[in-house]
Amino acid sequence: MQQCYVCGRKYQDDRALWRCECGGVLEHSWDGEGPVFDREQITRGPGSIYRYRGALPLAPGTEPVTLGEGMTPLLAGEWNGLRVRYKLDYLCPTGSFKDRGASLVMTWLKAAGVRAILEDSSGNAGASMAAYAAAAGIQCQIFIPAYASAGKAAQIAAYGAELVRVPGTREDTTRAALQAAESRLYASHNWVPWFLEGTKTAAFELWEQLGWQVPDVVVCPAGYGSFLLGLYKGFRELVSAGVAPRMPRLVAVQAANCAPLVQALEQGLQDVPAVQKQETMAEGISCSKPVRGAAQLEALRATGGTAVAVSEEEIRQALWTLARKGLYVEPTSAAAAAALDKLRAAGAVADGEEVVLCLTGTGLKATDKIAAMMAEA
Amino acid sequence: MQQCYVCGRKYQDDRALWRCECGGVLEHSWDGEGPVFDREQITRGPGSIYRYRGALPLAPGTEPVTLGEGMTPLLAGEWNGLRVRYKLDYLCPTGSFKDRGASLVMTWLKAAGVRAILEDSSGNAGASMAAYAAAAGIQCQIFIPAYASAGKAAQIAAYGAELVRVPGTREDTTRAALQAAESRLYASHNWVPWFLEGTKTAAFELWEQLGWQVPDVVVCPAGYGSFLLGLYKGFRELVSAGVAPRMPRLVAVQAANCAPLVQALEQGLQDVPAVQKQETMAEGISCSKPVRGAAQLEALRATGGTAVAVSEEEIRQALWTLARKGLYVEPTSAAAAAALDKLRAAGAVADGEEVVLCLTGTGLKATDKIAAMMAEA
Repeated sequence: MQQCYVCGRKYQDDRALWRCECGGVLEHSWDGEGPVFDREQITRGPGSIYRYRGALPLAPGTEPVTLGEGMTPLLAGEWNGLRVRYKLDYLCPTGSFKDRGASLVMTWLKAAGVRAILEDSSGNAGASMAAYAAAAGIQCQIFIPAYASAGKAAQIAAYGAELVRVPGTREDTTRAALQAAESRLYASHNWVPWFLEGTKTAAFELWEQLGWQVPDVVVCPAGYGSFLLGLYKGFRELVSAGVAPRMPRLVAVQAANCAPLVQALEQGLQDVPAVQKQETMAEGISCSKPVRGAAQLEALRATGGTAVAVSEEEIRQALWTLARKGLYVEPTSAAAAAALDKLRAAGAVADGEEVVLCLTGTGLKATDKIAAMMAEA
Repeated sequence: MQQCYVCGRKYQDDRALWRCECGGVLEHSWDGEGPVFDREQITRGPGSIYRYRGALPLAPGTEPVTLGEGMTPLLAGEWNGLRVRYKLDYLCPTGSFKDRGASLVMTWLKAAGVRAILEDSSGNAGASMAAYAAAAGIQCQIFIPAYASAGKAAQIAAYGAELVRVPGTREDTTRAALQAAESRLYASHNWVPWFLEGTKTAAFELWEQLGWQVPDVVVCPAGYGSFLLGLYKGFRELVSAGVAPRMPRLVAVQAANCAPLVQALEQGLQDVPAVQKQETMAEGISCSKPVRGAAQLEALRATGGTAVAVSEEEIRQALWTLARKGLYVEPTSAAAAAALDKLRAAGAVADGEEVVLCLTGTGLKATDKIAAMMAEA
């Protein structure tokens, strides 16, 4: 079922809502029996997130809307002497981890008979939702900030989505989308609970790829938090089902120019404060007031994790360091790598621990930004 | 061993050569025991081309230079009513199938103690060789035509390779690289036999993903032919080892503006003629005189396949049709899709056959071209 995080009201799974009538954000929770993890069935399953079908809230017989998302490589490597594993989620079909969520959302919407949606995004989620809407045969309108990369915009339009460019901040884009949402479903990846049901498969994959073990620490970029919250949900389900003994520590990385999670932890707050954000090259995590801010703080605190802020210069350096290992990612992902040095210096990760670094978006969508950075250097 | 296709001279595997002393092109062939395909070992192996290690010519103990290449999705779908499977090789680490070959070449060169190489490429191979050279710790210089996409150039430079832009045709780029090759090894993906040892894994994957069966027809773009020849070699090894009963028909797709294979088949030639090529948006197959032209003709004839030429307008249309299914590819890959209608009309593929369409390069590297196409439309 879908349940409101604020007032507790419940809705059936087949109702295509984006939020509770009270305005609160919805979450999926299991009625009766929880998710099932059958290792043999998983191993024999398809090479996509649907190998974990037993843990996905889909009615029997529902045909997945799939483009082969998930089962991305987990690469053994090192970062300035620290042993890490790189989760290459930028090798999802449209170039970001958002495909995990978009696939599940479109599977759910198609089954519910929805014909047209709109969404707002800083780029990656827009491309992802547009691609999966195309695969599902659902009409799609994407609102993006005018500052989003040219590559991201061209990709969204090519999938056949109607592209609406909004001047101003990321938040202005959301406001414009909400105004338009009176005529068609606002299938926002930040709101609809099915998105996290998709991103949680990243946790399942790490568990499978590590030989059915959970890592000690997982580091990822976080703005609206759809990757972080997916990890939290996924690992919790593994622990609840008794197939994993404990949670990994989850670490959220933000740009110092926009770090509400970091501020909230420092100040001991239960929800993120509205911060005055400055521009950051990490556009995927440029979010001053995330919808699921309280849930993100819970994920960090409950797992013994933390949030780290990194400067623009640290992001830039990390991007080059990754590229020179053959890993070409967008600045948002490079931010996560930049945090490793700080975590190690602070004793928050130790040598010998199993540390996973999540690289969530490809550098190929940030070509204009990367080329400009190279010209400056 | 490595053996010359022209004079038959043999060389040991550990000699880092790019061609025979007679100037002929080298091929790898097995001494004594051939490749081994152990299904259980493959299934338990890593999620990369190294799951087929028993069929790769690597000395025991050789550490692979890997970025998680291969095991790309095989997606069930349709094309204008024809049932096809899309092989999404553009989801390799750097955005093209070339990673299969580059990984094996760099593994081989690193084991041979090579410290620096140069290569020439129209873009995808350059990015791939640069990324794997970075992963291997090998210095790398890439010559690319001045007309190559901005995205491809930025990506190559970001991996830390030295980029040399050459005005003129693709062939002018090769000439410039050959001149420079007097001072360091010319590790051209079109020449060194290890590249095909990597691309042949695409055949193994199709066989595994189809439940250890070979398809009826495989359609791919072909210029220098590294994908086509990899398929040919891979399927031959499966048949020789007795784990596959027959070869699929292999179909090479070329741009009508540069179609030497098509001309050679029409004219019954044993090698490709030097054609006067015109510009094509399918830059990855813009090659008027491929090094391994005779071998490509052999692959097409021996399997009962064919070569098809498609117009610029057909490529453009196919690119939109694919994108509107959620498959965002570069024009070179779209060309292969464009050929399906012609093959079907000519009776060269039949409804009910198992047809695989290989999508070899991502649209994210062709953003400038795709955006320009959208602006024109």
